[in-house]
Amino acid sequence: MGSFKRIGLIGRLDSEAVAYSLARLVAFLATQPVDQVYLDAETGAVLADHALPAGFSVMRVDRERLPSVCDLVIVVGGDGSLLGSARLIAGTGVPLLGVNRGRLGFLTDISPDAIEPKLGAILQGDYSAESRFLLQVSVLRGEDLIGESLALNDVVLHPGQFIRMIEFDLHIDGQFVYRQNSDGLIIATPTGSTAYALSGGGPIMHPALDALVLVPLNPHLLSSRPIVVSGDSAIALQIGEPQTLQPQVTCDGQVHIDAKAGDWVRVAKSPHAITLIHPSGHHFYDVCRNKLGWATRYVPSQA
Amino acid sequence: MGSFKRIGLIGRLDSEAVAYSLARLVAFLATQPVDQVYLDAETGAVLADHALPAGFSVMRVDRERLPSVCDLVIVVGGDGSLLGSARLIAGTGVPLLGVNRGRLGFLTDISPDAIEPKLGAILQGDYSAESRFLLQVSVLRGEDLIGESLALNDVVLHPGQFIRMIEFDLHIDGQFVYRQNSDGLIIATPTGSTAYALSGGGPIMHPALDALVLVPLNPHLLSSRPIVVSGDSAIALQIGEPQTLQPQVTCDGQVHIDAKAGDWVRVAKSPHAITLIHPSGHHFYDVCRNKLGWATRYVPSQA
Amino acid sequence: MGSFKRIGLIGRLDSEAVAYSLARLVAFLATQPVDQVYLDAETGAVLADHALPAGFSVMRVDRERLPSVCDLVIVVGGDGSLLGSARLIAGTGVPLLGVNRGRLGFLTDISPDAIEPKLGAILQGDYSAESRFLLQVSVLRGEDLIGESLALNDVVLHPGQFIRMIEFDLHIDGQFVYRQNSDGLIIATPTGSTAYALSGGGPIMHPALDALVLVPLNPHLLSSRPIVVSGDSAIALQIGEPQTLQPQVTCDGQVHIDAKAGDWVRVAKSPHAITLIHPSGHHFYDVCRNKLGWATRYVPSQA
Amino acid sequence: MGSFKRIGLIGRLDSEAVAYSLARLVAFLATQPVDQVYLDAETGAVLADHALPAGFSVMRVDRERLPSVCDLVIVVGGDGSLLGSARLIAGTGVPLLGVNRGRLGFLTDISPDAIEPKLGAILQGDYSAESRFLLQVSVLRGEDLIGESLALNDVVLHPGQFIRMIEFDLHIDGQFVYRQNSDGLIIATPTGSTAYALSGGGPIMHPALDALVLVPLNPHLLSSRPIVVSGDSAIALQIGEPQTLQPQVTCDGQVHIDAKAGDWVRVAKSPHAITLIHPSGHHFYDVCRNKLGWATRYVPSQA
Repeated sequence: MGSFKRIGLIGRLDSEAVAYSLARLVAFLATQPVDQVYLDAETGAVLADHALPAGFSVMRVDRERLPSVCDLVIVVGGDGSLLGSARLIAGTGVPLLGVNRGRLGFLTDISPDAIEPKLGAILQGDYSAESRFLLQVSVLRGEDLIGESLALNDVVLHPGQFIRMIEFDLHIDGQFVYRQNSDGLIIATPTGSTAYALSGGGPIMHPALDALVLVPLNPHLLSSRPIVVSGDSAIALQIGEPQTLQPQVTCDGQVHIDAKAGDWVRVAKSPHAITLIHPSGHHFYDVCRNKLGWATRYVPSQA
Repeated sequence: MGSFKRIGLIGRLDSEAVAYSLARLVAFLATQPVDQVYLDAETGAVLADHALPAGFSVMRVDRERLPSVCDLVIVVGGDGSLLGSARLIAGTGVPLLGVNRGRLGFLTDISPDAIEPKLGAILQGDYSAESRFLLQVSVLRGEDLIGESLALNDVVLHPGQFIRMIEFDLHIDGQFVYRQNSDGLIIATPTGSTAYALSGGGPIMHPALDALVLVPLNPHLLSSRPIVVSGDSAIALQIGEPQTLQPQVTCDGQVHIDAKAGDWVRVAKSPHAITLIHPSGHHFYDVCRNKLGWATRYVPSQA
Repeated sequence: MGSFKRIGLIGRLDSEAVAYSLARLVAFLATQPVDQVYLDAETGAVLADHALPAGFSVMRVDRERLPSVCDLVIVVGGDGSLLGSARLIAGTGVPLLGVNRGRLGFLTDISPDAIEPKLGAILQGDYSAESRFLLQVSVLRGEDLIGESLALNDVVLHPGQFIRMIEFDLHIDGQFVYRQNSDGLIIATPTGSTAYALSGGGPIMHPALDALVLVPLNPHLLSSRPIVVSGDSAIALQIGEPQTLQPQVTCDGQVHIDAKAGDWVRVAKSPHAITLIHPSGHHFYDVCRNKLGWATRYVPSQA
Repeated sequence: MGSFKRIGLIGRLDSEAVAYSLARLVAFLATQPVDQVYLDAETGAVLADHALPAGFSVMRVDRERLPSVCDLVIVVGGDGSLLGSARLIAGTGVPLLGVNRGRLGFLTDISPDAIEPKLGAILQGDYSAESRFLLQVSVLRGEDLIGESLALNDVVLHPGQFIRMIEFDLHIDGQFVYRQNSDGLIIATPTGSTAYALSGGGPIMHPALDALVLVPLNPHLLSSRPIVVSGDSAIALQIGEPQTLQPQVTCDGQVHIDAKAGDWVRVAKSPHAITLIHPSGHHFYDVCRNKLGWATRYVPSQA
């Protein structure tokens, strides 16, 4: 993947901490051998000009155009910010790097205190790159496509309003699985397995695994369990008969598609992946231990 | 895989129901265009001669020799019986078919009432064949190999006695994951994901998935969760300091290897797989619905 | 409690099956030594007159007035119908009997096929009576009471919309417990422990237990667990800072109170209980075995 | 309960840290207005005499006699040490205080660093006292009593050896509940609900609740759930037909009673309770937050 010369920056808009980290990022990039720094126009609008280093030219471009002009996009914010950028950039081949200003940070793994040494090393080619697949979801009413979206973490079918169950039929690879009454169903990628699906009782899946997990939300039937299937599986849900609900399909907790009884929700791996850049020495299980409070060993031993 | 002409039979030994089904099987095979029926010698010892059809020659051979003389082995019993035969036959290329005389029957999918039509169809070539991988486990003390075995369902590290916790360090693909205090750890194949691992809170994995699941048993740490990793992962556990325990590694609930503090338990996919034969129309999710009491839809709808 | 002479009837309105069972009920009551049958006016509006036995006088009264004129109220429908009647009738001393036309039926334990023998026995004094307590919930904004309700099953604080977490502080008996981010919190009575709280991972509580259970819904923090406290506990939740949510407090899945960040939700046992009438020989664990598919013993043995 | 003048000390035997804390305890008690310090003889045997303050008389008595001569017993060790002392002292009226040298410390709530201020305040009458009930378990074979014990935390029926299921019938208050196949059943007090029962998926119960929880261990049937019943319930388990198991009943993880197929295990509240002494300001939920890593609120708010 080589070295990065044209860097795009995206920040969550509503946070002073993000603005501070963005300014620190630009100040640092001004000292590095990069050709051009691009600032997402929307992000730039909330970043005061005086926050940028004098004499260093930062170009503002629309977020949608970033992938066409950059060879690396850095997102400052929480995992949520990175999810939005990931859906935008998927399939372009431009890699993403996350600087964490949020709470969990399974995806954004550079701490704001460590911008200079970590990013410095990355710009010198000292990093690892990792591909993560996305889901493609389509909602169909008869022959009509009602809505579609990508999702890096998860697709959730839910009743729209709380305290209403939803009924649906689940099919995997053309096989009927079950009719379920529940608060909904999460279909998560390995990337999403440490997000909402984990709260819902799903397993942790290693990011490199080619698999999906289906996690029922508070299912009526006590013998329902999370199901793990191949990443190449075709998932199809048909929403059951209408009661007083407004079913929705939500992608990454951010994109909502309204649906109706009888609609089909089809979910499969998208042909468009993203590439995440990590500092060297980044390991998934280290992140788990840190984020989930898992115990470390008392005395190192050799594996 | 073609048609089956030399059929081996293995039965669980302690059950009249099994003896009855074996006799019914032989009587049916006597009417079919098969070249030879072989009876596992140990099984044959408990099956009275008069139970076999007059004038039909059944050859008795040692269980270990069955794979070398048969092109299909039929196991009559529960999933437990099939597990034992699977470890014996793994890597020989000879497929297995299960006639269910036990309780669960995720693996043995021919009902004893349906021997004639189902087996008849299979002998005429009307079946599906499915490959299932096994695990290879080795227990190492320094340089010494203390014990090893195959497992079709699962490998469990446990303290040997109840009401004693075990402490161990888990490594996956050379990465340290965590130090855990628990009643043990299940490492299950997709095949085993509907067995003990399911009782322990693990997800259901589709049999065709190339993955392993690690399920902690009653872990001390409440944020422990099942972890799903690639089927090609190398799992290594080091057993912690001795207390009053006699740690064991158990394969498929049947083979026990005694271990000690400091020992390493290494688990990876075996190069030897087995082939399961199913009647046509057999589907994994149908079995789940049946065995787990999942709801069926009220009105058929097209997927 | 003696025998029942003035019987009130309430039915779920939108179901032909309910109308059929109501008519069958009235026809049966016409043959019994009862003084008067009262029909909830709303229910009566949807029950055709010709469905009632000729020459038998059924009085229609407003649902709210039923407790003042009846000494038994029979509800025809699912557990949901009984919940609504329970909140209406709580504290009046008039007992409730449920005829099951719904799906689960933990509360409505007379099967529609068994109306005549079961109700006949009950009218002859052959029954058991059981008290069930209700919860009283109040939502407070500063000094102002924003809303209040009773609940027989559960009170749920939730974000109103799906795919939005809610943050709140939990206090029990004046002690701070934790700040939680989750899909919400269920506070359930023993009666409600087999309803939504069970889907959410809560324990089953025997109906006679004087306790509440607090069940977090898909909590962010993996070490969150259901908490069981005395039935006399005072539960107080303060809703956290606003994001894009419209928090609600929902009672029995039926009554919704809109809330805001900063509001206090206070939940405690109501002084008003209800009395459930059961046929003799009704046992809670029999219902559990039946509804949850628990195994029965193969051979009876004496306890 | 007044002030404490005759103090008994019990320490776990195998730990230098315990010996150190014991010596520190005695040194501190030598400066306090206490009449006599008694040292459990077994503990005293491992505590070097020079570790005790010169000129201060410490009397050694058998552990069993401690309750008859003391008005407070202090246990130095982990929760396990306190459990053993609790069974010994139950019913005598002598209260227990725990100094924590173990890992979890739900019961032993004085940190070894805070012995002087915390114990000083307690000796001046500044403390809270809390009653905790114990379980009485009896194992019966026909008319014969095979074994019996008390338990402060839990009684566990299990197959003795790992990787063997146990089958039993559960009866509560004379009602048959279910026949279960599992790794065993935990019957826990509120005190024990934060110990093994919590790892097994049980709810947290407030220590003052008058209830028991039954937690199935890895049950075969997926719709099995923890059950919470009144503290006055009579629990009876009958062990199922023998396979290759050596069933055991274990109390507090410390006392083991061997059982056989057909035996009855009867569990009920013991008439003998213990009293735990806590420093003032000790609250159960504070301990939970600390031990389970629950989130604290960011800004204090008034309940």
